[in-house]
Amino acid sequence: MTKARRIIIIGCGAGGGTTAQFARKTDRTASITVFEKGKYPQYSKCGLPYAIAGTIPEFLNLIEFSEDWFKKEHIDVHLETTVEEINIQQRTVLAKKGTARIEKEFDSLIFATGAKPWVPPIQNIQKNGQLLQGVHVLRTIDDGKKILAQIKKGKKATIIGAGLIGLEMADTLHKKGMKVTVVEALPAILANTLDDDMSEPVLQILEEKISVYTNHLAIRTEEHQGVITSLVIKDTPTGEEKKIETDLLIIATGTKPETSLAKTIGCTIGKTGGIQVNEKSETSVKNVYAVGDCTEYIDFVTNEPLGIGLGSVVVRQGIAAGINAAGSLYSLPSGVLLSRTSEFFDIEIAAVGPVKQGMKTLPLVTGKYKGSSRPDYFPGGEPIIIKVGVHEETGHILSAQAVGSNAAQRINTFACAILSKTPIEEFRKLETAYAPPIAPTLDAVTLACDVVALKLARKRR
Amino acid sequence: MTKARRIIIIGCGAGGGTTAQFARKTDRTASITVFEKGKYPQYSKCGLPYAIAGTIPEFLNLIEFSEDWFKKEHIDVHLETTVEEINIQQRTVLAKKGTARIEKEFDSLIFATGAKPWVPPIQNIQKNGQLLQGVHVLRTIDDGKKILAQIKKGKKATIIGAGLIGLEMADTLHKKGMKVTVVEALPAILANTLDDDMSEPVLQILEEKISVYTNHLAIRTEEHQGVITSLVIKDTPTGEEKKIETDLLIIATGTKPETSLAKTIGCTIGKTGGIQVNEKSETSVKNVYAVGDCTEYIDFVTNEPLGIGLGSVVVRQGIAAGINAAGSLYSLPSGVLLSRTSEFFDIEIAAVGPVKQGMKTLPLVTGKYKGSSRPDYFPGGEPIIIKVGVHEETGHILSAQAVGSNAAQRINTFACAILSKTPIEEFRKLETAYAPPIAPTLDAVTLACDVVALKLARKRR
Repeated sequence: MTKARRIIIIGCGAGGGTTAQFARKTDRTASITVFEKGKYPQYSKCGLPYAIAGTIPEFLNLIEFSEDWFKKEHIDVHLETTVEEINIQQRTVLAKKGTARIEKEFDSLIFATGAKPWVPPIQNIQKNGQLLQGVHVLRTIDDGKKILAQIKKGKKATIIGAGLIGLEMADTLHKKGMKVTVVEALPAILANTLDDDMSEPVLQILEEKISVYTNHLAIRTEEHQGVITSLVIKDTPTGEEKKIETDLLIIATGTKPETSLAKTIGCTIGKTGGIQVNEKSETSVKNVYAVGDCTEYIDFVTNEPLGIGLGSVVVRQGIAAGINAAGSLYSLPSGVLLSRTSEFFDIEIAAVGPVKQGMKTLPLVTGKYKGSSRPDYFPGGEPIIIKVGVHEETGHILSAQAVGSNAAQRINTFACAILSKTPIEEFRKLETAYAPPIAPTLDAVTLACDVVALKLARKRR
Repeated sequence: MTKARRIIIIGCGAGGGTTAQFARKTDRTASITVFEKGKYPQYSKCGLPYAIAGTIPEFLNLIEFSEDWFKKEHIDVHLETTVEEINIQQRTVLAKKGTARIEKEFDSLIFATGAKPWVPPIQNIQKNGQLLQGVHVLRTIDDGKKILAQIKKGKKATIIGAGLIGLEMADTLHKKGMKVTVVEALPAILANTLDDDMSEPVLQILEEKISVYTNHLAIRTEEHQGVITSLVIKDTPTGEEKKIETDLLIIATGTKPETSLAKTIGCTIGKTGGIQVNEKSETSVKNVYAVGDCTEYIDFVTNEPLGIGLGSVVVRQGIAAGINAAGSLYSLPSGVLLSRTSEFFDIEIAAVGPVKQGMKTLPLVTGKYKGSSRPDYFPGGEPIIIKVGVHEETGHILSAQAVGSNAAQRINTFACAILSKTPIEEFRKLETAYAPPIAPTLDAVTLACDVVALKLARKRR
């Protein structure tokens, strides 16, 4: 009888949990152990703003796979357990739960250690190594519960960072009746998601409901008896300072990959700071994998290294790591498409491929089209703006961004075109489904491509 | 000075109108003439059920390009004008408006003559060559107005044909408070749109609100003083007859291409009965084009001839004919994808590629997945069922069908995969956009593909 394969996974977020599931699907007899330092098994971090909003009734609803579920699958999950040491020669992991020590051997090891919130250098934001009272990050269920406890109708909330999570939280706090201000260091909101000309109409809608300061750095907080009272921000171009009174401050300025354990066993760390992994989710160390926010993979369009931060990619890496670690074979596409979407203040946005800023080395030609979800003669059409980016020489679609009706599903069609390297001349003739209540005869998806194709034709003349 | 190009278009529906527009865009100086036998310039036939329903307030709202619009574009539209004769040697068209005769020369001629409703052989449905009072087809604005005039709350309506138009009308009449019965000769509803297992859940929802008889032939009508009173139908398997009392009967059993004029000049008619056209919308006669419901083109998946009947395809043919007839170059894809969608009784359906029945010669492997538009933990997710068909040997996606949330936009992603010949192994790893309120981490689009991929792997083992 062959010995059962031993798989150890560090971290039980979406990446670690998915890895465990797919390892189990692939090898029914493997011994699978997951060490998770937090209190909860696999839950949706992306759902936190909606649990705070109350749209999702309870934080515990976010748990996608319970302890019982893992137990039934014979996956040994240790919660509130921290891995202290890995001995790569002896292939052992040493973990601690309270005062108890657990030592386990592995054949395959998977890092799913995630990322921790990055707090920008703001004067007086910490006291004795702790964030000031009223100041929060949002990464865990416990963070979410703390924020919820501080929400008070009519009071003032400030959010630093106008990325997806920042704006999802802005919507949540606005709906809860708080006066919301968003502060963003960059000149535009959603800078990693949309080009400036695409985020501009979103900003206009936001500004009807909340205050947004772009091009402003958060420089210091003021407090009373350890509780935040205001945030001082500085206009980057003019240097002018402004004080924003605030009862609640949320920092949504991104994360840093958690790689300290991986470093101790010599996993190569890439230039984005994440653990380098390949299409099988393997690290540079044999039989050691990594998945999720602690990793760095390749951008499909630019071929440049890319820090992973999208739940959809994390889950797909987990599938790959689980299947490969359990002895079968699964390869991811040669890069990440960066398909992404969100919804706030009743606007759906979505995009695929890098923003313009991220494609400086590529000969990019773009086209934009503003249309409607329905033919003109049919009442109730919703606006949709689509922008497409194409490689001037190959004619391949490199990116697409959408604001409005069914943005996400429209962007998925572009994702297929990017993955399949469909030339714009072919894709612009795509026969999209038409019916008056649902979509016009020619969808904005292809009409935006016609705009690019015209520009390309002119350039080539 | 070269002489201006002379273009004549017969028919001003979506096909003829679009041809005229794109001819004008391509050649600003051409003489463009359109002869239309009906009263109205280009309007949306697909919108008729919604104008009857009142969702579109007026029938005239359906007009997409007015006489004035054509005038401004210097396109000479003759309404209520019938082309009587074409002399292909002398390149002249003879048309009649009332008693006036118009003779015009052309360099390029385009048939956009459309199709006429096909009325099945039902005993006693006509009197003196006219449909019985209370019996209607739905093809024109005038048909729509006549139907609207006969709608009465609480009265009984019967529809023959459970295709898209039949069910759109069933929804309309149901909403207007009529008691609706649908009679379909085939064993399933929507037989040209969905496979039986996909139309089954749609039928279940319909049957909560209306009566549906599949496998039933309409055999005769009964009348009182020239007005229909009932329809007698026959159960095909058992031969049993049943009388359905009805105040209004709508025949939605499809159309026949109008090709009589094209035949007189020797255009090849294909085996579906439509005028054969190529990727430039050219007929077999030099400088003569045809577009729309009077034509036959190629099915992209089966390479078999296919009668054109989808507005989205008609418009694309019009683009091709207009640009080519005006001396530039535009080619359609090598076949029609058959992307199609509709919505009735609050169910959105969509599909691309032939139904199973239409792919008997291909080694088809299918997979189906029932999911939700949102992650399980997020309230308000709507059901979505997706079925995918794949070529067993090449792994290419051949078809996809969807019932439920955002079916049409989901199907467009498959349309791109079919057009790009994306193998299922690649497409199933497509990174779809994820956010809890919008879509789950893995969309039903790719999960349905996983089901097929598993079946394929088993078959290949």
